[in-house]
Amino acid sequence: MSHSPARSAGLIIRQVSPSNLETPFHALGERITANGQFYQRSHFPVPTLQAESWRLTVRGRVMSPLKLSLDDLRALPETTVTTTMECAGNGRVHLSPRMPGVQWDLGAVGTAQWTGVLLRDVLQHAGVESGSLEVVLQGADCGTLTDPGRTPGDIHYARSLPLAKATEDVLLAYAMNGQPLAPDHGFPLRAVVPGWYGMAAVKWLTTVQITDRPFQGFFQTVDYAYWQQTDDLPPQLVPLSTMLVKAQIARPAPHDAVVAGSHCEVTGAAWTGEGVVTRVEVSADGSESWADADFLDPAETGVWRRWHYSWDVPPRPGPVTLLARATDSAGRTQCAGHDPGRGGYMINFPLPVPVTVTPTSSTSEAP
Amino acid sequence: MSHSPARSAGLIIRQVSPSNLETPFHALGERITANGQFYQRSHFPVPTLQAESWRLTVRGRVMSPLKLSLDDLRALPETTVTTTMECAGNGRVHLSPRMPGVQWDLGAVGTAQWTGVLLRDVLQHAGVESGSLEVVLQGADCGTLTDPGRTPGDIHYARSLPLAKATEDVLLAYAMNGQPLAPDHGFPLRAVVPGWYGMAAVKWLTTVQITDRPFQGFFQTVDYAYWQQTDDLPPQLVPLSTMLVKAQIARPAPHDAVVAGSHCEVTGAAWTGEGVVTRVEVSADGSESWADADFLDPAETGVWRRWHYSWDVPPRPGPVTLLARATDSAGRTQCAGHDPGRGGYMINFPLPVPVTVTPTSSTSEAP
Repeated sequence: MSHSPARSAGLIIRQVSPSNLETPFHALGERITANGQFYQRSHFPVPTLQAESWRLTVRGRVMSPLKLSLDDLRALPETTVTTTMECAGNGRVHLSPRMPGVQWDLGAVGTAQWTGVLLRDVLQHAGVESGSLEVVLQGADCGTLTDPGRTPGDIHYARSLPLAKATEDVLLAYAMNGQPLAPDHGFPLRAVVPGWYGMAAVKWLTTVQITDRPFQGFFQTVDYAYWQQTDDLPPQLVPLSTMLVKAQIARPAPHDAVVAGSHCEVTGAAWTGEGVVTRVEVSADGSESWADADFLDPAETGVWRRWHYSWDVPPRPGPVTLLARATDSAGRTQCAGHDPGRGGYMINFPLPVPVTVTPTSSTSEAP
Repeated sequence: MSHSPARSAGLIIRQVSPSNLETPFHALGERITANGQFYQRSHFPVPTLQAESWRLTVRGRVMSPLKLSLDDLRALPETTVTTTMECAGNGRVHLSPRMPGVQWDLGAVGTAQWTGVLLRDVLQHAGVESGSLEVVLQGADCGTLTDPGRTPGDIHYARSLPLAKATEDVLLAYAMNGQPLAPDHGFPLRAVVPGWYGMAAVKWLTTVQITDRPFQGFFQTVDYAYWQQTDDLPPQLVPLSTMLVKAQIARPAPHDAVVAGSHCEVTGAAWTGEGVVTRVEVSADGSESWADADFLDPAETGVWRRWHYSWDVPPRPGPVTLLARATDSAGRTQCAGHDPGRGGYMINFPLPVPVTVTPTSSTSEAP
């Protein structure tokens, strides 16, 4: 509803209202995604908040409930964190059968430098009671869900974190890449949860509530949860959390033409929710064989690594499918198929990029 | 699929496959519902189990995992419990807008004498480890759920109970009203959970598993849960448990004719999940005024009380709507509207019974 045309130039509209815009991933450039190129995920209309009147309420199982202004927060130690954030439904358009939700292609992912205060510093001021379990983050964004019999009506966006994660590395950010947070990105304050899918990074944050039981809100159960298989019980609904390891090809873009017998630079980025990506491989023969790509960026926890691979394009014209897969320092890698228990989330099977090998350079070639 | 025509004569088919049949509530007679008149709720095809090869597995957080035959169970102290069981969706057809699920009228409720062993005796043999939280009951019934993106595929029916409830009064029943349990009612063993909606009374029971965390299976979250409002957080999904207090009118039946100026016996039953029903009231003027009904049955925890009220039918012909409402020993009573957070469950607003006051007895009158 309220994205500025100037700020969002070049983004791809996936949903007009609420505003859901994705980055054109094939244009991947710097390691840091510019603010105007960063994907936007909204569940409700963007709320209009005033810096002067806005307050962050900290309540629940705390010794001292707090109401903090933006100035109060700025008086706490400032921290800047660089982290890659991916929407849990990134890549959903590639699922078959079609899954409900925004039909993201590859661009619901980006990397930014977030500046703010650590949630643990705020919690320390409030004094968390012993026996507490979770921290529920609630945003000012709200609206009515309409799926009859399944949804709780008029609600605010809210998501919980285990207390251990909340006090580890979660940031409450008021700036993004050195700029004040824009309304589309959660002005005046949003959570940044390193290593977790974006649904945890609550925007337009107004309330931090400490609880002693698992939060079972809509965006923790019906939405943003998956069916976890266990050996001895039926599948159980588990809230999404850590990002899975994943490599994406930026270039060539799907359906690009590449010249037979040439060298083609295959480039992309790879990330993971725990540790760092240690290996990216590329296949040009339908995963029969894989070759190692080279990293353009050093290994930094929580931040994607851009990579490239110099592909010897085969001499024969025809269709070729490129694949990339990543492995991380925890030994996790990407599987060929999508676990149906994940529904429309955690899509990390290697996505095929079909290209056409052409005999001459008369058609456009990827850079 | 497998209900015997002889056993289910008179039941109303709400769904053919899986078999979902309800009692014609207007025919309410004895306090105990005959086996052939008891409602049947199935989520999957009725499994065919053999008494000789069937075993109950007790596992998880127990000192001694068990595999019990029917004879092993019969060797434990036998208990008979009379209890009213209501499907959590009973009355759903009266909701507007229509809610998904079986469109039950008034008859997904019944009262039976169940015979078997107390779950706490079985758990005592196994030895529950300290720090345990729940008991997951799993049935042999299974099948594939097809709602894409929302459901976990091929699953068994399973439901959990808090350990406190499991060790209080839950029965594992092998007989119903003095007869061996029929296949439609869970042969060879089902749970009976006094005071709880029927979804907890797992049929065709095969596994009892002790856990240390809340079970988040499909029938605990997507199905058979409701949105609980709290003051300070968005609504949370809570598994259905205790039956709400409720009175239903059996006779006159909807659209019956009653003679102007006559005495009409309004009869029905009332039940509650905690304590006993202490009061039933009837209104014939759209809840402007209420008059006390008389009980036909004594107050017994967990068992419905039939009631009757001698209604002075007004002298003027025309449409009249009858209502009944119950109050229980915990002071709970029935509210006029349906909380949308309950979705298609826990329907206990007083259901209107429209009747027609006729000038003569030429048309049929309720007995």
